[in-house]
Amino acid sequence: MVAGQKLYEGKAKILYTTEDPNILLTHFKDDATAFNAQKRGRIVGKGEINCTISSHLFQLLESHGIRTHWIEQSSPNEMRVRSVKIVPLEVVVRNLAAGSLCQQTGIPLGTELSPPLVEFYYKNDALGDPLLTLDRLRVLNLATPEQVSQLQRMAEQINQHLTAFFQSCGITLVDFKLEFGMEPDGTLLLADEISPDTCRLWNQATTDPAERVMDKDRFRQNLGQVEEGYRQVLERVLAQSIDGSGKAML
Amino acid sequence: MVAGQKLYEGKAKILYTTEDPNILLTHFKDDATAFNAQKRGRIVGKGEINCTISSHLFQLLESHGIRTHWIEQSSPNEMRVRSVKIVPLEVVVRNLAAGSLCQQTGIPLGTELSPPLVEFYYKNDALGDPLLTLDRLRVLNLATPEQVSQLQRMAEQINQHLTAFFQSCGITLVDFKLEFGMEPDGTLLLADEISPDTCRLWNQATTDPAERVMDKDRFRQNLGQVEEGYRQVLERVLAQSIDGSGKAML
Repeated sequence: MVAGQKLYEGKAKILYTTEDPNILLTHFKDDATAFNAQKRGRIVGKGEINCTISSHLFQLLESHGIRTHWIEQSSPNEMRVRSVKIVPLEVVVRNLAAGSLCQQTGIPLGTELSPPLVEFYYKNDALGDPLLTLDRLRVLNLATPEQVSQLQRMAEQINQHLTAFFQSCGITLVDFKLEFGMEPDGTLLLADEISPDTCRLWNQATTDPAERVMDKDRFRQNLGQVEEGYRQVLERVLAQSIDGSGKAML
Repeated sequence: MVAGQKLYEGKAKILYTTEDPNILLTHFKDDATAFNAQKRGRIVGKGEINCTISSHLFQLLESHGIRTHWIEQSSPNEMRVRSVKIVPLEVVVRNLAAGSLCQQTGIPLGTELSPPLVEFYYKNDALGDPLLTLDRLRVLNLATPEQVSQLQRMAEQINQHLTAFFQSCGITLVDFKLEFGMEPDGTLLLADEISPDTCRLWNQATTDPAERVMDKDRFRQNLGQVEEGYRQVLERVLAQSIDGSGKAML
């Protein structure tokens, strides 16, 4: 494996090999896509913002004992991560109803979900990342029942830590998507990113349904000031130390 | 409530009041729709065929102790049924993969599902009858957890009896959709119909993927000989007694 070789280019990131076969380099792009890549655009500065927010949040989670693939932020828009086998599932945690949940079920936007929903989607662009029931997950054989239980538990723990942290930033964590990877010994690690691309984040300073949105919904719904939303999340996250004391640690 | 008043007109049936407030009359229409009513047509004789097949199968299930809304077939395309509050769920049992399961997950057509899948869909035309996870079902509050367990158990039992019966007819029961109703005391009853409109039925005399289809897929997929498929199911069902001994009871 040659160092610096492009391994995979996704919609928002590129993965490169490094000199160490156990370590990959993730390059965060400014490219933005939505609705299974039917809508495409560019959000200036997004790569750096998402890389920095993700790095901060991965460190936060590590400090709480959650294992992640994150090693270090090696440049403004690059992080070094452990090379893992990605589990082909998108694990979505929902604290308030939004997005496809509302569209598919008619549950009103913002309905509190208590306990939070943990949903599994098949990570498969050709099929449009379909929602899976636990039975469909079993039939597709995408993870063992034990792994599914572990993913559910990890997602719940991650939600507790992230919800509390964003709360300290004056931001409501509405929902978010996680991806996990597996190490050769079967250990599950949190992978991918945690950013305004993968979370719905509402500014608690306003209740205006358009104004409060600080995440990719600004792009999806053409709300304008997309960069501004991402940048505000970055500023608030960096102003907050990992332990919630309000002092930046990065 | 005036006897003979139209209570509700659906895509394939009309419900009328009767002189008895606890009893309704179901009129089976020849109208056929598919893909959430985006495709419309007419299958000559379907009303009588589906009414007769349903009556036969409801009796079969009653003889096995499954409670149904069926009282009697009062004319070729009409049955008298108990008036129940319909649970807004479509309960789908799948023995082999077909239809939306294949389209949504990529599982190949005809894949054996063991144990069979029991899936819940929200009976809501405006939303396109979406698939529900157990969590979404809970959030929507469409049935209590106890009712969901009971629906699951009843669906599994019904599947065992129908699979064995169709097997004795030389027909593979691929999948089917059930609807349930609730009596005032909360008792769940099997309602709606069981017919080639609501079941996928494959003729075991051929393995040709188009030829074997004896159900509404002939209409959905423009396979031709739609009436012929329905009529063959009727003949085989009527030639078979409820206890599988090959002697018609109707």
